[in-house]
Amino acid sequence: MKKFINDVALVEDQMIQGMVKAYPGYLRKLDCGNVVVRANKKEGKVALISGGGSGHEPAHGGYVGCGMLDAAVAGAVFTSPTPDQIYEGIKAIATDAGVLMVVKNYTGDVMNFEMAAEMAEMEGITVKYVVTNDDVAVKDSLYTVGRRGVAGTVFVHKIAGAMAETGASLDEVHAVAQKVIDNVRTMGAAIAPCTVPAAGKPGFELSDDEMEVGIGIHGEPGTHRESMKTADQVADMLLAQILGDIDYEGREVAVMINGAGSTPLMELFIINNRVSDVLAEKGIKVYKTFVGEYMTSIEMQGFSISLLRLDDQLKELLDAPADTPAWK
Amino acid sequence: MKKFINDVALVEDQMIQGMVKAYPGYLRKLDCGNVVVRANKKEGKVALISGGGSGHEPAHGGYVGCGMLDAAVAGAVFTSPTPDQIYEGIKAIATDAGVLMVVKNYTGDVMNFEMAAEMAEMEGITVKYVVTNDDVAVKDSLYTVGRRGVAGTVFVHKIAGAMAETGASLDEVHAVAQKVIDNVRTMGAAIAPCTVPAAGKPGFELSDDEMEVGIGIHGEPGTHRESMKTADQVADMLLAQILGDIDYEGREVAVMINGAGSTPLMELFIINNRVSDVLAEKGIKVYKTFVGEYMTSIEMQGFSISLLRLDDQLKELLDAPADTPAWK
Repeated sequence: MKKFINDVALVEDQMIQGMVKAYPGYLRKLDCGNVVVRANKKEGKVALISGGGSGHEPAHGGYVGCGMLDAAVAGAVFTSPTPDQIYEGIKAIATDAGVLMVVKNYTGDVMNFEMAAEMAEMEGITVKYVVTNDDVAVKDSLYTVGRRGVAGTVFVHKIAGAMAETGASLDEVHAVAQKVIDNVRTMGAAIAPCTVPAAGKPGFELSDDEMEVGIGIHGEPGTHRESMKTADQVADMLLAQILGDIDYEGREVAVMINGAGSTPLMELFIINNRVSDVLAEKGIKVYKTFVGEYMTSIEMQGFSISLLRLDDQLKELLDAPADTPAWK
Repeated sequence: MKKFINDVALVEDQMIQGMVKAYPGYLRKLDCGNVVVRANKKEGKVALISGGGSGHEPAHGGYVGCGMLDAAVAGAVFTSPTPDQIYEGIKAIATDAGVLMVVKNYTGDVMNFEMAAEMAEMEGITVKYVVTNDDVAVKDSLYTVGRRGVAGTVFVHKIAGAMAETGASLDEVHAVAQKVIDNVRTMGAAIAPCTVPAAGKPGFELSDDEMEVGIGIHGEPGTHRESMKTADQVADMLLAQILGDIDYEGREVAVMINGAGSTPLMELFIINNRVSDVLAEKGIKVYKTFVGEYMTSIEMQGFSISLLRLDDQLKELLDAPADTPAWK
């Protein structure tokens, strides 16, 4: 394993410390583990918390700031944060307006966030939550009952975060977060694995001419493996499944081409070139496109396509100002 | 070679098309090859143009927009753009205030940008230029006489771009660009190579326990190879050479931890954790930190550290608003 790290046992701690030192104007680390909160707590609004295992950077710490999250909780790499950690995060950001948790659908995450919410509610904090499940690849998976929450989660952070910033009520912020979830679909593919530092070896193997279609953000299996195809063919395959899942006809969408970690922007733009053409052919209007690394899988080589159906409310909230380390 | 591409001959074209389709509000492509200019030309200010070989994305097209560049010219992967291409870019953006070219110090780039400038001057366009040479690793290199221009170039785009936006004269914009060059130093290391699509195989080889110290942004040799070290040790080694090159004592700096393509943010933050600590120990104050992929080498696994000495003018211009696909 060749990585720029110091000690596998210190990876998460030193990463979070390095992140906070990079963005002291945005982030403050709590003393109770890898929980980052806004450097300046904002009262009088619904507070948003998200998180999950480490290894998805810039998710989730990179999205803490004005117009997005109030706290991000980071577990060990690809491992859910503990209920205690999440609870400390909730307590640090809670306001009278309540707290919304944005949880990706993984069994461990859902269980631990729910436990933390119960602990917080015993302290008199009002907590609601949404569970993202945008991955259309597989119905149930290695770590989930139901679909997995993947890159589309970042749209939930952005849009629910913007809604919270308007001073909307917890019910209203919850409703718009759920609206994003109802309207966003994602699917990915990968051609090379990532290595969890503590494991020391790649999470899966692929031959030189093989790709995993429908892969999850921890490298978990997708729909199938097949021989490597062109960028256009892979884009077509993923788009077909996304477009077949809900009705996009005549709709406006936001597009996210998300790099999994080591797929260069060069390739992501080539993918977007195809996605853009296919959507144009189908009369689906692209309102805004995001190409980059939003929800990674350490250094996995792969990407995902997310399509979010928009209406006027979602467009306005997507366009609203945000000021975070990773989304401005 | 496993890449999400369609045809090695179409990589650059499809990438630029996909980039323009992602950001139609920012970018317009000229008909004369891979030259992108601002979607809406801004008159009455010095126009900035930069570029070089493809493969460094988001550089340079990602920096075209308000407060940074007016045009970016992209050659084939790791190959200088032609004088004709650059000339067309200059013509498209030229204003009465003149044009500043920001050129990385590579023999081909310098020669072709100079030829383009001569062509433009024959048309009555006033052109000045700066050559960036921030890489402290090697004095002369495979493709340069003198030091190479690497990630520090992005600070030149940002700061000279902000200066141009104020309505400053060509001489003033040129002077501040040169001031950035005089004050920025960079050095990098890599642990795995990238593959130029048209070549079909990695540009160099490293054994499982080996790294290249002082590597260039095309994978060209650095100062030496040695066995893999910890993140802290590598950061210390690079910092020592940067800090030994000009006097940083008691100065304020901007820090850039630039990923070469497939080094995950996780590792870049671990690097920053060390860089931040070392600078603090030495009494060098960090004004602002940038961690991410700013000047890549396709999917090379590596990173560079850049330190820019700041004064009040540079701080103000660094903080000035920018609105481009890759820097906001």
